[in-house]
Amino acid sequence: MKVLLVGGCGFIGSHVVDRLLTAGMSVRVFDRRPEPFRPPVEKVDYSFGDMRDTSLVYEAAADVDAIIHMASMTVPTTANLDPVEDVTGNLISMLRLLAALRDRPLRKFVFLSSGGTVYGIPESVPIMETHPLRPINSYGIVKVAIENYLHMEQHLHGLPSLVLRASNPYGPRQGHAGVQGVIGTHLWRIAQNQPTEIWGDGSVVRDFIHVRDLAALCCDALLSDLTGCFNAGSGQGASISEVVAEIGSVVRASGFAEVKPTHKPGRNYDVPRVVLDISKAKKLLGWEPQIDLAEGLEETWTWVLSQVTD
Amino acid sequence: MKVLLVGGCGFIGSHVVDRLLTAGMSVRVFDRRPEPFRPPVEKVDYSFGDMRDTSLVYEAAADVDAIIHMASMTVPTTANLDPVEDVTGNLISMLRLLAALRDRPLRKFVFLSSGGTVYGIPESVPIMETHPLRPINSYGIVKVAIENYLHMEQHLHGLPSLVLRASNPYGPRQGHAGVQGVIGTHLWRIAQNQPTEIWGDGSVVRDFIHVRDLAALCCDALLSDLTGCFNAGSGQGASISEVVAEIGSVVRASGFAEVKPTHKPGRNYDVPRVVLDISKAKKLLGWEPQIDLAEGLEETWTWVLSQVTD
Repeated sequence: MKVLLVGGCGFIGSHVVDRLLTAGMSVRVFDRRPEPFRPPVEKVDYSFGDMRDTSLVYEAAADVDAIIHMASMTVPTTANLDPVEDVTGNLISMLRLLAALRDRPLRKFVFLSSGGTVYGIPESVPIMETHPLRPINSYGIVKVAIENYLHMEQHLHGLPSLVLRASNPYGPRQGHAGVQGVIGTHLWRIAQNQPTEIWGDGSVVRDFIHVRDLAALCCDALLSDLTGCFNAGSGQGASISEVVAEIGSVVRASGFAEVKPTHKPGRNYDVPRVVLDISKAKKLLGWEPQIDLAEGLEETWTWVLSQVTD
Repeated sequence: MKVLLVGGCGFIGSHVVDRLLTAGMSVRVFDRRPEPFRPPVEKVDYSFGDMRDTSLVYEAAADVDAIIHMASMTVPTTANLDPVEDVTGNLISMLRLLAALRDRPLRKFVFLSSGGTVYGIPESVPIMETHPLRPINSYGIVKVAIENYLHMEQHLHGLPSLVLRASNPYGPRQGHAGVQGVIGTHLWRIAQNQPTEIWGDGSVVRDFIHVRDLAALCCDALLSDLTGCFNAGSGQGASISEVVAEIGSVVRASGFAEVKPTHKPGRNYDVPRVVLDISKAKKLLGWEPQIDLAEGLEETWTWVLSQVTD
């Protein structure tokens, strides 16, 4: 099976690449630029460009059996700065791509959506896939619109699609720009002896999933005959305070100073509590997360240290 | 109270104008062009332009207390022809408008959404507002995205908005272009002795609401302190075959020949059955539809005849 990974040089994409190669698949990657943390992977066929250039993505999709689309021009924390750009860069690009792909007989289209934003403020946790979709930020609204267009594409033109609503992934190769992922950001700053800060009082609860668990699910989704939406989290909630405390004990164990983050005002587009119910993916895809938070944090910290001392 | 009606020269808009004037409100209308079926209405302040030109709409919104937005660049039957244009013309225009309006202290923003498309294929009828939103055409997907951005705007910036999910409005002043409204289209064609046609076998069920009932609800929505989404239908389902039969008896009573529509293949983006549960609007807004289908059809037919013989 030959697979195109749109956004395959990103944090999550790089782990999906590993997983697909291990599973013996042929992998092509389309992205804006090479992976930042390792050299090009042998056996991967790379193609570089802007995903708003539909013809380039279409070309990269030549002779593939399936596509995993995990590219986004925005992240949850930046999408609200310019919702028009969010819609143009992500939604319209997807519409053009879907129209172009209609003459390509794809076996599967897997799309990475956002379990942390599409539901909005949850009525209760853990959140099932049937929970109403009431996003309160642009990132989530655009993801819902793309999910709906995929649903329509399947209904009208037969493209089998599976949507993974990912929670908060973390792990090795997560960047340190500070806009994506509290765990990566904190570990990078600590490793570089920089002060850390958190938004709000630390009571916000998130569902952190190790990136290799998420990559495994992407692979399972690709191979499954099922379509529709699946939550992709750990199924466990952890408050930011708990995560910061856990990070503290991990870094102290390797001789770093205790971590005392400063608090910034909470952000009104942050929902208070997200924990995904992952029983659907467990039951129907036979998948289960393998790496718990403590173990994953240790591994990620080791990786961050290896990058900083390099 | 001074109200701006965006799309106020359209079929529904023209009746909302009447209703607001009757209620003693001051009315400004923004639209692409004047009403097609009557001269400019005295006391209405008209402003013409393209709603994609945000500065024009912003200017028209000067010193108003509230806005009713019922303009759309597309209709359900055309939106799928060019989803990119649907997103650009409707969604992006709305995003720019909402951003521009943030310095205007509006008392209310009423948006006309689509009860016939936002729910997709209903799990059961009548459909409540809490039914999952799973649209299968671009028109409905864009309406859902706009609903979500309004929800976000209220959450983040305090704009009080109320969304009306209208079913199939019909009545005097409905156009005859043949893309919007089976009732209007049939009556116009019969009055001009042209053959009529229907998509599919006539078993598709829709919820037809008289346009004055809908206009009354728009006015109630404007004056209410409530926000959120409300279904706006008659609460009654009628199949296309039933409507055609009813039309037949109405037109025969005025000496026209029996109507035998030809059947065209069904359209795969038509959902089989839509009947809205309107108990929320009844209970919370104290509104109730007043005009039943038989009575409304007779009135509409009389109006169509008056236009044809003019």
